[in-house]
Amino acid sequence: MKRIEDENRIVFFTSSKFKFEEASRIAQNFGLDMIRKSENIIEIQSESLEEIALFKARQLMKRYRNLTFVVEDDGIFIEALNGFPGPYSSYVYRTIGNSGILKLMKGEVNRGALFKSVVVLHVPNMGLKSFTGICKGTIAKSIHHGRMFGYDPIFKPLKADKCFSEMTPEEKNLFSHRAKSFKKVFSFLIKIRSTINGEDYG
Amino acid sequence: MKRIEDENRIVFFTSSKFKFEEASRIAQNFGLDMIRKSENIIEIQSESLEEIALFKARQLMKRYRNLTFVVEDDGIFIEALNGFPGPYSSYVYRTIGNSGILKLMKGEVNRGALFKSVVVLHVPNMGLKSFTGICKGTIAKSIHHGRMFGYDPIFKPLKADKCFSEMTPEEKNLFSHRAKSFKKVFSFLIKIRSTINGEDYG
Repeated sequence: MKRIEDENRIVFFTSSKFKFEEASRIAQNFGLDMIRKSENIIEIQSESLEEIALFKARQLMKRYRNLTFVVEDDGIFIEALNGFPGPYSSYVYRTIGNSGILKLMKGEVNRGALFKSVVVLHVPNMGLKSFTGICKGTIAKSIHHGRMFGYDPIFKPLKADKCFSEMTPEEKNLFSHRAKSFKKVFSFLIKIRSTINGEDYG
Repeated sequence: MKRIEDENRIVFFTSSKFKFEEASRIAQNFGLDMIRKSENIIEIQSESLEEIALFKARQLMKRYRNLTFVVEDDGIFIEALNGFPGPYSSYVYRTIGNSGILKLMKGEVNRGALFKSVVVLHVPNMGLKSFTGICKGTIAKSIHHGRMFGYDPIFKPLKADKCFSEMTPEEKNLFSHRAKSFKKVFSFLIKIRSTINGEDYG
């Protein structure tokens, strides 16, 4: 247990290796060390990603009071489908998948969609704080190649010339919702640490 | 509060008037009195309807220890879509609706689907017990007329010649998943009450 309680370490509670890889790459750019941990927690049904993420974080806070940790919830919201699949993106991916989404989008002129990521950060003695990242884009007309993670093969960010799946991790992090939310988290963490250090030694 | 604690009364916690009407019609056939109550409770994400319904019932049990009550969770599971929309039937209905389901089913030869209802019953001093009802059928090729409740206009039970939406409430209760689960609940309640009465006066 000592290892994960190192004060320079941030624990990311997630069962997804993909999400962890993306986030820890950004953490490194901030000079921060991130480790992954899986934990059995209850996930609620809600149309608000923030509510879902906060509910997860509150359960973990009771178990890991002395830990700096994050949880994330994300989803893809498609305009022509009234926001579907939204908070249930992961279930929808496991059942109808990208081919189901493309079938639903057949003939739709409005291809607009956005990816949203909400990260909730816990800092000991400070409580919880949430950070949001959004990436706007469009739903492609076919399944693109590359890294087959979730909806990446059918989502093209605005101002990009290819889908997420066709980008290197570095390229994806220039656009992605997750990169945006985690950059906010890490900037915040560095700011509060420098403030604390400033008070201690300044 | 006295009113809902009448021992011959069963409280159905649901926000749906349609579900309540169907269930209370069956309750009447058993000579039982059912009332509806809405309550703010947390609903979890799970692929098991039983888990979702039990989680709801456990929250209510803490608040209504002396009440005989039921909660229900239901969903439609479509074979060709790997069980989608399943436990998220209500969210999927609100976003892509029946026309979305028909779009997903376009060209699918296997039209098989089932409706499932899980009712969790709480009886004071006895705890929780769950009852399941299943109705097998097929997904129609178009939206049928009649009572526009949920997926009823696109679901035709096996051995029926029309969709749920085109049936009278009495007809629907001859087939429906909800009728089956609630009949089990009421038979059980009558059985335990006659046992208790038998011991008291026999």
